[in-house]
Formats: sequence, C-alpha cells, structure tokens
Amino acid sequence: MTVSTALVGPTDTAQSEDLRTMVGSALRHFLDTRAEDLLSIGPVLEPVVAALRDFLLNGGKRLRPAFCYWGWRGAGGMPGDTAVIGAAASLELLHACGLIHDDIIDASDTRRGQPAVHRRFAQLHHRDHLRGSADGFGTAAAILLGDMCMTWCDQMFDENLPPTANVRAAKKLFHLMHTEVLAGQYLDALEQSLDTVSLSRAMTVIRYKTACYTVVRPLQLGALLAGADDELLASYSRFAMPLGEAFQLRDDVLGVFGDSSATGKPTGDDLREGKHTVLLALARDRATGPQRGELDRLVGEPALTEDGVDILRSIIIDTGALRDVEAQIDARMSLVRGALSDAPLTEEVREALTELAIASTKRSA
Amino acid sequence: MTVSTALVGPTDTAQSEDLRTMVGSALRHFLDTRAEDLLSIGPVLEPVVAALRDFLLNGGKRLRPAFCYWGWRGAGGMPGDTAVIGAAASLELLHACGLIHDDIIDASDTRRGQPAVHRRFAQLHHRDHLRGSADGFGTAAAILLGDMCMTWCDQMFDENLPPTANVRAAKKLFHLMHTEVLAGQYLDALEQSLDTVSLSRAMTVIRYKTACYTVVRPLQLGALLAGADDELLASYSRFAMPLGEAFQLRDDVLGVFGDSSATGKPTGDDLREGKHTVLLALARDRATGPQRGELDRLVGEPALTEDGVDILRSIIIDTGALRDVEAQIDARMSLVRGALSDAPLTEEVREALTELAIASTKRSA
Repeated sequence: MTVSTALVGPTDTAQSEDLRTMVGSALRHFLDTRAEDLLSIGPVLEPVVAALRDFLLNGGKRLRPAFCYWGWRGAGGMPGDTAVIGAAASLELLHACGLIHDDIIDASDTRRGQPAVHRRFAQLHHRDHLRGSADGFGTAAAILLGDMCMTWCDQMFDENLPPTANVRAAKKLFHLMHTEVLAGQYLDALEQSLDTVSLSRAMTVIRYKTACYTVVRPLQLGALLAGADDELLASYSRFAMPLGEAFQLRDDVLGVFGDSSATGKPTGDDLREGKHTVLLALARDRATGPQRGELDRLVGEPALTEDGVDILRSIIIDTGALRDVEAQIDARMSLVRGALSDAPLTEEVREALTELAIASTKRSA
Repeated sequence: MTVSTALVGPTDTAQSEDLRTMVGSALRHFLDTRAEDLLSIGPVLEPVVAALRDFLLNGGKRLRPAFCYWGWRGAGGMPGDTAVIGAAASLELLHACGLIHDDIIDASDTRRGQPAVHRRFAQLHHRDHLRGSADGFGTAAAILLGDMCMTWCDQMFDENLPPTANVRAAKKLFHLMHTEVLAGQYLDALEQSLDTVSLSRAMTVIRYKTACYTVVRPLQLGALLAGADDELLASYSRFAMPLGEAFQLRDDVLGVFGDSSATGKPTGDDLREGKHTVLLALARDRATGPQRGELDRLVGEPALTEDGVDILRSIIIDTGALRDVEAQIDARMSLVRGALSDAPLTEEVREALTELAIASTKRSA
C-alpha cells in the first residue's frame, strides 16, 4: 500500500478524501488475503467473498477509522503511518458486523441503498432454486458473514499494530469497545420491547450503542497506538462523548426527516419500526391528547405510508421535539468545541477533529 | 487460580477431570470480569450475564481446550501452566458462539438439555410481558450473545499467551481457525439447501466445520503456544485430521442412534432437519426403490414421530450405511493410532492423546 504524502499537508476536504481512500485500500488488501483463505476452501465461497467486498468497499463514511487516525495524530503519531491506517480501518469490520447483524434483528431490507446481506443471500437462494426457506438461508448466511467480520476486525487490528503501541492497553480497550457496543445493541433491543419510552434510558443506549464505539473508543485506541497516557485519553473523552451523543441524535433526526437517497435507508423506517429514540420520547412527553392518539396509532405501524410519515413529522415539529433535539445537539457541540480548544492538541489535529465533528453531525447525511 | 499438582502425574481419568475443572475455573474467572464490564453498564444486563454463565459453565466436554493443552504438552510445554489453560479455555468461547448461532440457524429449541439461548430470551420476553415479537427478541439477544462470545474468545486468548508463545504464528492460526469454522458453517447451510446429497461435499463440510476447529487447530495452537516449529505441526495434523473426521462421523451416528439424555438434543433431530450427513448420503446411495421412497417421505419432515425415526433407523441399518460409517470411523482411528505412534511425543502425551481420541469417538456420547 502506498501512502499519499498529501496527508502531511494542512487539513482540508482533500485530506479527508485521502484518508478515506487509504482506509479503503487497506480494507481491499486485507479482504484480498481473506478471499484467498476462503477460496482455498472452495470456489463455492465466492458469493461470500463478493458480498463482503461489496459491503465493505462500497460506501461508508469511514468515521471510526478517521477518529482512530486523528486520535493517533493527537498523541504524536506520524502522519500517514501505514500500520495505524490498517488498525484504524479494522474498525470498519466491527461496524460491518454490527450493521449486518442489526439488519437481521430489525428485519431491514436495505442498507446503503443495496439489499441487506440477509436479503442478498435470500435472493441467491431464490435465483439458484435452492431447497428450503430462502429467508432462513439468508439469515444463516448473514449471521455467519457478520461473525467473519467480527473475527477479521480482530485479525486486521492485530496485524497492524504500530511499534509505538501500548499493546496490552490498546487490546483491552479494543475488547471493551466490542463488549460495550454489543451491550448497547442488547439494551436497544430491550428498549424497543418496553411499553414506555424513557429519555434517560434512550441516552444510555446512545452512549453504549453509538457514542463509545463511534467516537470515544476509536479516538482513545488511536492514542494508545501512539503510546499515549491516561491523561490524554481523559482529555479526549471530554469532547468525544458529547460528540458521539450528538452524532446519534443527528442520526435519529435524519431517520425521520432525512433524505433517503443520502441515508441509504427508506425514509421513516425508524417510525415504522417504532424505534424508541430521544426524538420520539420528547414528542410523546409533550404531545396533546389528540397528538398522542396519532402517535399511538402510527408509530410502529409497519405499513406506514408517506402520508403517515408526514403526519408524524408534523407532530414531532409541533410538539417542539425537533427543536429540542436540535438544541441538545447544539449544546453538545458547544461542549465539543470548548473541550477541543482546551485539549493538548496541535492546531492541525484540532482543526481536523473540528472538521470531523461538524461533518459527522451536519443536517444532511 | 490455583493449579492442581495432580496434572503432573500419569494419564488417567482423574487427570482429564482435573483439566476440565481447571478449564471451568479459568472460564468462570474470565466471565466474572466480563460480568463486571456488563453490569457497570447497567443491572438490566444481568440476564445476559446469567445466560452466558449457564451456557459456558454447565456441561460441555471441553474437548477443544483438551486438545490445545495436549498440543502444548506435546511441544514441551510445562504441565498445568496457568496461562496455557486460559488460552485453551478461550476456545470454548468460539465454540459457544458457534452453538448459539447454529441453534438460531437450525431453529433448535434445546442445547445440552436446556432451552437454546434464543429460546431462553424469548421466554424472558414472555415472562416480562414485553412488547413485540418474543421470537424476534430471542433471536436478537442470541445473535448478540454469540457475538460477545466471539470477541471474548479473542480477548481471553490474548490475555493468556504464555511467554514461550510464537505470538504471530499462533494468532494467524487462531484467526484462520475462525475463518475455517465459519466457512464450514456456511458450506453446511448451503449443503442443506441442495437437492442432492454428495459424499465428497459432506466430507468437505466435516473437515472445515468440525475436524479443523475441534482437533487440528486446537492441537497446533497449543504447539505454537509452546514455540513449536512447522515440523511438529505437520506431524500433529497426520493424526488430528482423521480424528476430527471420525469425531464428526461419530456425532452423525449419535444424532440418529444416540441417547437424547446423553446428547442433550432430542433424538432424531438430524433426521427431522434432513441434515445432509455422510450417514444419510450413504443410506440414500444404497437404498432400494421402496427404501428411497421412505427416505424421501420422512427425512426432513419436521413433525417426524418416534415411529418415523425407527423406520429411518432400520433403513440406515439395512442399507449397510451404519456399518459403512462405523468402518470409516474404524479406518480413521487406525490412521490415528499409527500416526500417534510415529509422532515425536513422550509416552505421557501419547497416552493422553490416545485416551482423548478414544473418548471423543466412543459409541455413547
């Protein structure tokens, strides 16, 4: 893998693009080697290889690798280090496992505008006129492909530890991050099974399901790969936690008000699934009697039409829930900016992290 | 963890018991620490902790840790080394992930005589009168708990590498083992979706889904933890591969003829699922017209009665399929014995491995 020297230059959009390209190359290279492992077992594994390549190499904002990379730079790591980019890229594999398994759990048909992995293998089952349940085969394949991504995340991380790494601390945090995100997903599944919506519980889910594993842990992992101490890790979490929360709050807003061509998911899916988000918890708290009736009738209705989505959007706006969530995002972003200016970072790193923070919470996906 | 000095003594049943006890203690200790991680997120994760403790600490033959341990001893590793027992015990976590996810894939209700993990969480959903689909919640929880076992396998292995370990080679093989078993499970799912049964394809499934990850890789991993060279690894695979194959062939026989109180699974489940095993492939190959008609009618019938199971058993016996599989097991066990006597092992290790080989392929589970 060649490393672009452009990374040494000042922070700008071109540089983020370069980083995304390098993360993509690292993943491509790693997947080529895994494809050799799989295809040496049998050519019949070609659809597995193709599905994972498509999933990992087409699209994705590479947010977690970016936070890991800038966490490394913030701790004095060298620009464009090949190893750290490989280690950072490995986080996309954990993310892929999460998304592939989440799509089974949520029975989501699409992901990034393409069929979800379990749908892709159900289609393969149909196409090849296989025996038994196509959905069952799709689910089986997607469970196993998610598992592969999980173990490959570990493999890719291990194979790319830079010599500066505090290996024991980094791997401890790496595994804690896995446990946290899986616990967060369980809490989320449990939350969706409760009759009531609670703001504080929804915030706990956000912290573990998203904030830790999207921002806090990737940044801290990057720092540990550069041999950082606990003090820097603590200063990272002061801006990383509110940023991770703001990221998920933005995602919740986009799940209701976003443009499906940008999010890659059908608009209103969160409403159809009746996701217990902070946005909906606020709307319900503040709804008048008739509004609450409409919420009860429409939220969680799988066959919800575009008109139904519009009614719910109006209620979310009229109750002030949208304005409040935007205010919560703004408040967190103020904390982020304050903590970023106080953090012991070079101007280049501070600017890059500020840019990332803004990009990951902006109003369009 | 204290290490029993009895391990230094000669190979006998008491010693296998000691090893199993030590593996259990290592798992218990590791799970206690993971429980702290989970419960610090929230007490609502208690059912997750309880389910994983029950799954990992009650029962299980600890075969994979035993092969890993004796692979270590065969390469000159010290008896009763605490680290290697921890690393060996970690293999139970990969196995747990495989079983938990496999039970979702096969829609199996029980495991080791207890409700499968997805059923356990569906029951929790019922008991607590939660909202939505109990089965959906059970599946979600079981996917996530399996994922936890997968990442914890890696964590426990990492945390217990003995100083003698060839870390790079051991982790490479460790990850290859993960890829192999997942590929094997995919091949198995695909195999069950085909109209035809093929002996050679069934043997490929056996190799990757079982033989590699139950015997070959655990033994070789143990050797690499003691710093062994490639020559010893090759000598291991000469007896490990036929032994792993014999183990799965025995499992296939027990799946049809075994005692459900010993296997922990309802008798005849393989027949109800219509599993494409070597045993069934042979029966089908050799069946007369009427026998084939019965096989077509009964194999894969979810509501198959005890009488139906008896009819199929008779056909499997009458076609000579059972006798042939027993002969294949015997032939492999001859290879195992020959390769074991040629392998550069001390008498103690040779005897322990011989005992393990016999125990893992004996006629009652």
